[in-house]
Amino acid sequence: MIKVGIVGYGYWGPNVARNFYQAPDAKVTAICDADQKSLCRAQLNFPDVELVQSYHQLVQRADIDVVAIVTPVSSHFDIAKLALENGKHVFIEKPFTASGAQAEQLIELADRKHLKIMVDHTFLFTGAVNKIKELLDNKVLGDLYYFDSVRVNLGLFQKDVNVVWDLAPHDISIMDYLIGLPPTTVTATGVSHFNSNEDVAYVTLYFPDNVIAHLHVNWLSPVKVRTTLIGGQNRMLVWNDLDHDEKIKVYDKGAYHDGMMMAYRSGDMWAPKVPEGEALKKEVEYFLSCISNDITPINDGHAGLRVVRVLEAIKESLKWRGAPVRL
Amino acid sequence: MIKVGIVGYGYWGPNVARNFYQAPDAKVTAICDADQKSLCRAQLNFPDVELVQSYHQLVQRADIDVVAIVTPVSSHFDIAKLALENGKHVFIEKPFTASGAQAEQLIELADRKHLKIMVDHTFLFTGAVNKIKELLDNKVLGDLYYFDSVRVNLGLFQKDVNVVWDLAPHDISIMDYLIGLPPTTVTATGVSHFNSNEDVAYVTLYFPDNVIAHLHVNWLSPVKVRTTLIGGQNRMLVWNDLDHDEKIKVYDKGAYHDGMMMAYRSGDMWAPKVPEGEALKKEVEYFLSCISNDITPINDGHAGLRVVRVLEAIKESLKWRGAPVRL
Amino acid sequence: MIKVGIVGYGYWGPNVARNFYQAPDAKVTAICDADQKSLCRAQLNFPDVELVQSYHQLVQRADIDVVAIVTPVSSHFDIAKLALENGKHVFIEKPFTASGAQAEQLIELADRKHLKIMVDHTFLFTGAVNKIKELLDNKVLGDLYYFDSVRVNLGLFQKDVNVVWDLAPHDISIMDYLIGLPPTTVTATGVSHFNSNEDVAYVTLYFPDNVIAHLHVNWLSPVKVRTTLIGGQNRMLVWNDLDHDEKIKVYDKGAYHDGMMMAYRSGDMWAPKVPEGEALKKEVEYFLSCISNDITPINDGHAGLRVVRVLEAIKESLKWRGAPVRL
Amino acid sequence: MIKVGIVGYGYWGPNVARNFYQAPDAKVTAICDADQKSLCRAQLNFPDVELVQSYHQLVQRADIDVVAIVTPVSSHFDIAKLALENGKHVFIEKPFTASGAQAEQLIELADRKHLKIMVDHTFLFTGAVNKIKELLDNKVLGDLYYFDSVRVNLGLFQKDVNVVWDLAPHDISIMDYLIGLPPTTVTATGVSHFNSNEDVAYVTLYFPDNVIAHLHVNWLSPVKVRTTLIGGQNRMLVWNDLDHDEKIKVYDKGAYHDGMMMAYRSGDMWAPKVPEGEALKKEVEYFLSCISNDITPINDGHAGLRVVRVLEAIKESLKWRGAPVRL
Repeated sequence: MIKVGIVGYGYWGPNVARNFYQAPDAKVTAICDADQKSLCRAQLNFPDVELVQSYHQLVQRADIDVVAIVTPVSSHFDIAKLALENGKHVFIEKPFTASGAQAEQLIELADRKHLKIMVDHTFLFTGAVNKIKELLDNKVLGDLYYFDSVRVNLGLFQKDVNVVWDLAPHDISIMDYLIGLPPTTVTATGVSHFNSNEDVAYVTLYFPDNVIAHLHVNWLSPVKVRTTLIGGQNRMLVWNDLDHDEKIKVYDKGAYHDGMMMAYRSGDMWAPKVPEGEALKKEVEYFLSCISNDITPINDGHAGLRVVRVLEAIKESLKWRGAPVRL
Repeated sequence: MIKVGIVGYGYWGPNVARNFYQAPDAKVTAICDADQKSLCRAQLNFPDVELVQSYHQLVQRADIDVVAIVTPVSSHFDIAKLALENGKHVFIEKPFTASGAQAEQLIELADRKHLKIMVDHTFLFTGAVNKIKELLDNKVLGDLYYFDSVRVNLGLFQKDVNVVWDLAPHDISIMDYLIGLPPTTVTATGVSHFNSNEDVAYVTLYFPDNVIAHLHVNWLSPVKVRTTLIGGQNRMLVWNDLDHDEKIKVYDKGAYHDGMMMAYRSGDMWAPKVPEGEALKKEVEYFLSCISNDITPINDGHAGLRVVRVLEAIKESLKWRGAPVRL
Repeated sequence: MIKVGIVGYGYWGPNVARNFYQAPDAKVTAICDADQKSLCRAQLNFPDVELVQSYHQLVQRADIDVVAIVTPVSSHFDIAKLALENGKHVFIEKPFTASGAQAEQLIELADRKHLKIMVDHTFLFTGAVNKIKELLDNKVLGDLYYFDSVRVNLGLFQKDVNVVWDLAPHDISIMDYLIGLPPTTVTATGVSHFNSNEDVAYVTLYFPDNVIAHLHVNWLSPVKVRTTLIGGQNRMLVWNDLDHDEKIKVYDKGAYHDGMMMAYRSGDMWAPKVPEGEALKKEVEYFLSCISNDITPINDGHAGLRVVRVLEAIKESLKWRGAPVRL
Repeated sequence: MIKVGIVGYGYWGPNVARNFYQAPDAKVTAICDADQKSLCRAQLNFPDVELVQSYHQLVQRADIDVVAIVTPVSSHFDIAKLALENGKHVFIEKPFTASGAQAEQLIELADRKHLKIMVDHTFLFTGAVNKIKELLDNKVLGDLYYFDSVRVNLGLFQKDVNVVWDLAPHDISIMDYLIGLPPTTVTATGVSHFNSNEDVAYVTLYFPDNVIAHLHVNWLSPVKVRTTLIGGQNRMLVWNDLDHDEKIKVYDKGAYHDGMMMAYRSGDMWAPKVPEGEALKKEVEYFLSCISNDITPINDGHAGLRVVRVLEAIKESLKWRGAPVRL
């Protein structure tokens, strides 16, 4: 039985706590939050779990093997460092850290102490991303042409981060997993209408082999959109995460050189059944099995670092209104 | 009765010819195309119009007041120059010219000879753009936050231009008309998968007052999308040009500062009736009345030049993978 | 504090129990279910509520004022009768009873003992139905022309009732509330593909003043549809209950006599904001206030009886392949 | 070369004329319409075709082999009878005749004179209906459960027929073709809001083997709907004729008996490519080849008669508010 302590019981913390609580191989022993109201909510939901107000106490407890850190990114490094120093495995919210340097330090520390880090890139455990990965691995789409993601809605503004740090880690981690190669150059544009944090932003990522990716993230859209287009040489797909019944549509469409001319192919469309089930549940169970069987998670510290490096490059490019930043 | 000669009877030429032909105040006297098959099609449709194979003949005819140029952009300058030199008004396909320098020369020539130029920015004459202009002018949206347009589909690849020169003139001319201010900086990214012409591209335009615009143009999309989001301080709208019945949806939604916090407003949605009718018909009739009444068209040579300048800046930025180009 | 006992903890029972549990003016004192597994689930969710296996015990308890009956319709009459005889108010699942005669007996009993009956016509407490009622009351649609509802999906088959008794009570109770008049004639058709219970059925209801209503209920549809069209003299509306953001669309469209000819009007569309919130919560709180303030609920026994009478007429008409049955 | 005369040049006539005109094996020699304005329009479109005002002249001409009758249904019988008596093949608008007795007389006459009748059930020649027929013939859906069609929109009211005679012949002819069996019983309900002709109607058709069909036709709907659900034992499909890109969706879903219980299957969805092309063109060419090769068309007089018999039964049932009428 792996014993888990939760740090942070705000918006997402209750979900992390619930999934560790219900996992057959884990036991949640303590929950920590600086806010008394959050602790009261934890009390109602998990009457048999101890509540503490300071994470310093929590990370030192002997009855804890894993610390799950579900706090704002600015606090990630300090808490994770302390947890690792105390010999605890770390499950940590995305984005991993506020800088690449912090991420490198945590990875090094975990390696030295033979501890696991899992960064909560939840989307990697959804039925949709798993199905797309399968289609790409089986060469159903053929060579990749582009990856285009739109993730927009009205609010919620975050005080301390811009719309990129809030929403783009989802897409960057998905891209990282699906494309399997790091981008070489990043370009980003955006503006802020209320304070210094961008609320609308556009990001282009250049990859090797003429693959291009683009993200549109926006806190000021009247409609919620969660749509990704993936173009390949043989087929193309549309993933609409808001479509309950037909999340992924694979189009038997393509463009190719036919001697001198471009030719087009347009055939059937096919919407494969996408397995349902809570992604976070699968992720938490996977993390527990990684610990038990000493396996490196796909979403380990290195994966987290790759995402943070792209976020840093975006920040730099945004400052210069789209100037390309090499990675 | 204004007498019109048409140069170019390929894809779009038949529509231009038909609309001048049916306009009460105009008479089409000659149609020119270098391709014999195109002339045969013209013959069938307009048995009473003279057909010529060289535009040099056409522009010198005494029975022509207006030359409508519906040819590839590379030929625009030569034909338009000759037409103006021969004292003819010019109706010309978008984009106006292959360079800003060419556009400036044509504008100067037309001014000197007191002739009209109209660049065929057809979208400015659609019910949808007129309705949006009305909403903006009446401050229904309030101060503008952003303009975001997606114009993607499968093909048709053009041999001599990239996807930006093919599709973006629509959006740039619409933006120019709706925003009413020139952009200050342009950033563009994209890749080519088949030859040296980009088939996927992303463009950001920075405007004064923190207004940002973005275009996504793509010849490799499995689905056709023609959607524009416009965010304003008071309301936001979605223009889906493929939705026959509810093209424009105005959302009574907004974000604003409420002291320290961001607050949101979410109310009714409203889809105003958008007038139908062929935009090109309205445009052609407007051009004829501009000539008769000596009025400068909204889509004159200067409007055409503004679009070409943005296209040139995009070309430059694309070369450097998104480096910002000041206008 | 009104004390509540719940009879039936299967599919819907947990929702009824939770809403009475959380209502400020109520206290759930006992839950009853014949199935031990269901009781275990109740135990987990409400550790402080007493569990009993027989409703005979429950309805006699002194610490119960209201019995909420959430069992299959075949058992409604016996349980409700016993509850009323023991002086308890009754909250009861739809359809009210298995026959009009049973409903009449319960209504008479409740009246005699000055007790309240509320039939759980949950939809009457949704934001959508309330908004439509408001539009009709304010004559926004004008005189009613028709009411057309489609409620189809794949399964779930019920053993003891057909698709009409399963799904149509929703629509019949909504119609009863919105139209405010009882139908005069009922016609119903349908077939069964697996046993003697219809899985596809169509129902027409004739009302006074040329108003017609129609229901399509189906357990064998590959897609889920929950759409109601309501046509009026001045405007028409579409209520798509599966559309999260634009549930109700009001069309400024109409048809009218213009002397000899029919004329049409086609204007804006308008999607009013529909209040969110759990309907069952509002219903339960309304029931508690009806008891406290001695008010007759809109969904009282008489409303339940009107629905049952229509269901009986449908059953009769189905037998004769659509023969009209007068009410 | 088969010589064709067209009787009726109103709403649909120009399409019939154009398709016979463009067919390689036919020549349109004369067009007839009682209305002078219609004849002027015909003159403009077909300057080389002779125009006549009375069909009596037209049907007697020696330079005519086929008479295409595109007039209101009330005139069908007289014109078709005269055409057949004069030895002409007949292409005739749907519905075939105003009564079954008329249809029988025309069939008998054509048979006796070895002439062809084709009733213009255009939908049988669409890519969508052909694809569905192919799916049914290949047992992709398995045994049929139901056929449900909705064909609603705002107007256009017809003076002399109700909404059933206007819209339902499409669905009845499609059903007749796809199901391949005549219905045994018909039930219909509806009301009229403006005159004695129903503007909203619902029709149920009972077929052998527990197959049921239902039509909803409506001239008073704020939205246009053209959707057919077809449920089968193995798979189910949705045909949305207004969806340009994904007209037909085949769902790998089903319900079946698993011993005592109902079980459900839910798998992929698949949208086969539906061939495009004008249905009327295919139909006209098919008719010409039926004449040349002495083949009986699938949409011959008998097919027309089957549709008229259903229409008559609907009329009868409507009168009695849904009373079942046996065929």
